[in-house]
Amino acid sequence: MKKFLSISDIPDLDKAIKNALELKEDSMKFSTLGKGKNLVMVFFNPSLRTRFSTKIAAQNLGLGITTLDVAQQTWPLEFGLNTIMDGHTSEHIKEAAMVLSSYFDLIAVRSFPQLKNRDIDLKDVVLKNFSKYATVPIINMESATAHPLQSFADAITIRETKINNPKIVLSWAPHPKSIPHSVPNSFVKMCKQAGMNLVIANPPGYDLDPTITSGIKVFHHQEESFENADIIYSKNWSSYESYGQVLPTDQNWMIDLAKMDLTNRAKFMHCLPVRRNVVVEDEVLDSEHSLIQRQVQNRTVAAQYVMHQILTNVPTY
Amino acid sequence: MKKFLSISDIPDLDKAIKNALELKEDSMKFSTLGKGKNLVMVFFNPSLRTRFSTKIAAQNLGLGITTLDVAQQTWPLEFGLNTIMDGHTSEHIKEAAMVLSSYFDLIAVRSFPQLKNRDIDLKDVVLKNFSKYATVPIINMESATAHPLQSFADAITIRETKINNPKIVLSWAPHPKSIPHSVPNSFVKMCKQAGMNLVIANPPGYDLDPTITSGIKVFHHQEESFENADIIYSKNWSSYESYGQVLPTDQNWMIDLAKMDLTNRAKFMHCLPVRRNVVVEDEVLDSEHSLIQRQVQNRTVAAQYVMHQILTNVPTY
Amino acid sequence: MKKFLSISDIPDLDKAIKNALELKEDSMKFSTLGKGKNLVMVFFNPSLRTRFSTKIAAQNLGLGITTLDVAQQTWPLEFGLNTIMDGHTSEHIKEAAMVLSSYFDLIAVRSFPQLKNRDIDLKDVVLKNFSKYATVPIINMESATAHPLQSFADAITIRETKINNPKIVLSWAPHPKSIPHSVPNSFVKMCKQAGMNLVIANPPGYDLDPTITSGIKVFHHQEESFENADIIYSKNWSSYESYGQVLPTDQNWMIDLAKMDLTNRAKFMHCLPVRRNVVVEDEVLDSEHSLIQRQVQNRTVAAQYVMHQILTNVPTY
Repeated sequence: MKKFLSISDIPDLDKAIKNALELKEDSMKFSTLGKGKNLVMVFFNPSLRTRFSTKIAAQNLGLGITTLDVAQQTWPLEFGLNTIMDGHTSEHIKEAAMVLSSYFDLIAVRSFPQLKNRDIDLKDVVLKNFSKYATVPIINMESATAHPLQSFADAITIRETKINNPKIVLSWAPHPKSIPHSVPNSFVKMCKQAGMNLVIANPPGYDLDPTITSGIKVFHHQEESFENADIIYSKNWSSYESYGQVLPTDQNWMIDLAKMDLTNRAKFMHCLPVRRNVVVEDEVLDSEHSLIQRQVQNRTVAAQYVMHQILTNVPTY
Repeated sequence: MKKFLSISDIPDLDKAIKNALELKEDSMKFSTLGKGKNLVMVFFNPSLRTRFSTKIAAQNLGLGITTLDVAQQTWPLEFGLNTIMDGHTSEHIKEAAMVLSSYFDLIAVRSFPQLKNRDIDLKDVVLKNFSKYATVPIINMESATAHPLQSFADAITIRETKINNPKIVLSWAPHPKSIPHSVPNSFVKMCKQAGMNLVIANPPGYDLDPTITSGIKVFHHQEESFENADIIYSKNWSSYESYGQVLPTDQNWMIDLAKMDLTNRAKFMHCLPVRRNVVVEDEVLDSEHSLIQRQVQNRTVAAQYVMHQILTNVPTY
Repeated sequence: MKKFLSISDIPDLDKAIKNALELKEDSMKFSTLGKGKNLVMVFFNPSLRTRFSTKIAAQNLGLGITTLDVAQQTWPLEFGLNTIMDGHTSEHIKEAAMVLSSYFDLIAVRSFPQLKNRDIDLKDVVLKNFSKYATVPIINMESATAHPLQSFADAITIRETKINNPKIVLSWAPHPKSIPHSVPNSFVKMCKQAGMNLVIANPPGYDLDPTITSGIKVFHHQEESFENADIIYSKNWSSYESYGQVLPTDQNWMIDLAKMDLTNRAKFMHCLPVRRNVVVEDEVLDSEHSLIQRQVQNRTVAAQYVMHQILTNVPTY
């Protein structure tokens, strides 16, 4: 693997899940692989799970680790081409990527979308420019359009349930704020790539990017979709059609025990952070069916597998 | 030791001081004890001494070290029970503590009080919730009501003076801002636990929490209290009765050389940061009687002893 | 070397450049020299190159590394003498330097000027006070008046060009903001110390501190100065005479290909960050004559040489 921008950068997802589960059993197996090499994690946005799972994963591989919180620690960056830089930004991504490539062997980047202009966000400007100008491998720690480390961890978590060909429902949830599409985008892509049995449930107006969801059945009635479900993956996202907006939609999409009762005793998943009693009721999140802690734990092995693959730069180990 | 929330979590303070002084002589004695284990230090507030003494202490024990500055690096946290999270906070402490427990072996937390509402501050909501929901040991790096790492370091510093049963005065000092009670609270508790000869001097209206100071003589005239004192521990705190307020009190409580002359050639202590020429005059702080540098140095061994005890999880080593 | 506040703290610059180039060939040669010792990097301002080159350099020497971003992580510092600290600042540099000296073996500091009052900035208050009150060596990571790590890296970069006695032009460039004099100050000092053939080109009103530039020819016409130049070092600075001001000056000082054609096929240098198409055109910055990446790479070896010299505390290794 030469970079990890998208879940599709994992060539054989089934084999990767299997290898990641083996790595989870022996997390210090490659503890000297990264010796003398350095990872920098560049954050344009807040992070808890990604920040620390990636750090622990890098540590397990023997990598040196450095964190850059852009807004607090360095210069405002320019991403435009041929820009006359007489405004707010004082350093061009071309130099920043060159500098980081000079000092580090791996660059991981987190940059959320603005959710104002769809065309701009779809260009995934920050991640793509890091990838364009850096001369070392780039790892996506959630970009404007994708969160593949989360989705790879989710794939591992689903495999661990040992449910045979589970029916998975990706179910939209209410939320007071405008939230990115990166997690559902990557989750849908991952499910398709792994050949999983996925359906999506969301209110009208909240259909995801149709180029991503093509071939997936989308329900506009939540309860209907839950029938025989083995896994409910709950997640809010803002409107894709009315881009970035929080629509005045029926708020009765929160997951509660009554809805879970409609399923085949389904497991509950969420990538976190989660707004309790808005996205999901306490009773569901705290139940024995909740997989959120496993998802958290599998973030480490997912990141470790990805960095291992990049460091060895061969299809599998 | 399974946690360190309060100075009373040290079962035998006298023995702990003795052991800490031994550890100070050979700070690398347990340099592999923490190998493969990780500490995260969670800061809701500024920190200099605590931040770095805890880091160096952890390093001396071979622990991996991670810092989280909450406001700059992660999501705003919710501490309410059964809250409908449709406001500013986006992650519940329940998940945050689970996540940190998944990635780390020790969690140290600093969170100051708001000093607006006494009942709320006395609940020590942040520290107590970390302790409630984390599944790994919690270390108090100063909470709304207590700063036991400071007081343990102070106990070590007092022992190092080799003064036999010193008379100690905890003397209130002026300050332009509203300051927490955590340091004096823990200092009083420590002195009582160690059977030290402590009196308190503060202006009327500044009496500390009576459940903590019970049995300790409180002077409302400073100079009277200084007679025969061997150690003056200077510290500001806001009013406990008129909770969090800075009262229009006589400002003549600053420590100067004339007041030190009333004592038995007393040593001067302060936990820092200290406002020069407001809390204490330069001449006193810079004198040979000042123990502030020793207090600073002993913060490292105090933290190292506490983490050693937690890592070995036995009463003494 | 006992400290590194100024380029003049390197006693024999020629020998230092030679030794640094040897160190660059074998950067792990002294990888255990710093074992058990700790560096703290104190930032009052943003940093990218300095932050990471110093970190990697320290890592190559086996030092423990800690970063302090003052504004986000600790108390506001007071630098006044005999101040009554009843205002915004809550900790005096005297204590802060003592505390850092207690926990660390090396202190590196970055603090920019305010560019409001020349007399104040020339006192280099932050760096000088750290140096005054710390009991461990201080390293200047760019102060109000000097950036010697940059200039030492620049000296190494110039040597690497293998141009025999190159003619160097330090050429002022336009910029929308008020920018410090630290980089040009140290660059001029370095060139004089190394006996390099330097001239300066800047518009009227932008002459640098004459005590620094004494003996150096200053052109007020840019193109004239470029004749036979082997190296163009481009850099903006605010006015020194009309201190800190951005004067309504002819903006035609940007470096473009036409101007580079006036030279002896000169190399282009800039310390970064650089405002593209304001300070220099894309075509020049991206050309094969640009040395900016080498300058970036040589920041690591410059910092590593300096810390090596301080750790061994002998003139050369």
